[in-house]
Amino acid sequence: MDGDEDISTTGEEFGREVGQQLRAVRRMRFMSLKDVEEKSGGRWTAVAVASYERADRQLKVEYLAELAGFYRVRVGDLLPPEPLAA
Amino acid sequence: MDGDEDISTTGEEFGREVGQQLRAVRRMRFMSLKDVEEKSGGRWTAVAVASYERADRQLKVEYLAELAGFYRVRVGDLLPPEPLAA
Repeated sequence: MDGDEDISTTGEEFGREVGQQLRAVRRMRFMSLKDVEEKSGGRWTAVAVASYERADRQLKVEYLAELAGFYRVRVGDLLPPEPLAA
Repeated sequence: MDGDEDISTTGEEFGREVGQQLRAVRRMRFMSLKDVEEKSGGRWTAVAVASYERADRQLKVEYLAELAGFYRVRVGDLLPPEPLAA
């Protein structure tokens, strides 16, 4: 048995790391949460982005791709570096 | 203006491609939807996995990581190859 716990912990941890990457990318763009709301024309509210960054709100894969587009980075840039699964 | 439509289309398209990758990885493992339900001890029901694969149900980033763990692939293997954002 490899353990269900392992797997779900990985999911949660992964989610947190994606949030941290989102914040890092926003800062790389020198944007405040409010800037994101303004520049996205309200598509991304400051509150929503803040919750995604804190991983309080679970981010859908679709949104991840949209946010990558918004920040003009690759989706892969929003993901934590991966330890090889094995 | 780069267009909000561009961005959201990318999100939806991306979601569909992730679903296709999920299906491809399951088949690579020679698993039926029912196998997934059984081998995951019900963590992933056949119905849920089928909807993720069809992109009928939006997949959360956390689940993406968990599914990658379940199939023993990297999260990156579940994502479509990316055209460089530029």
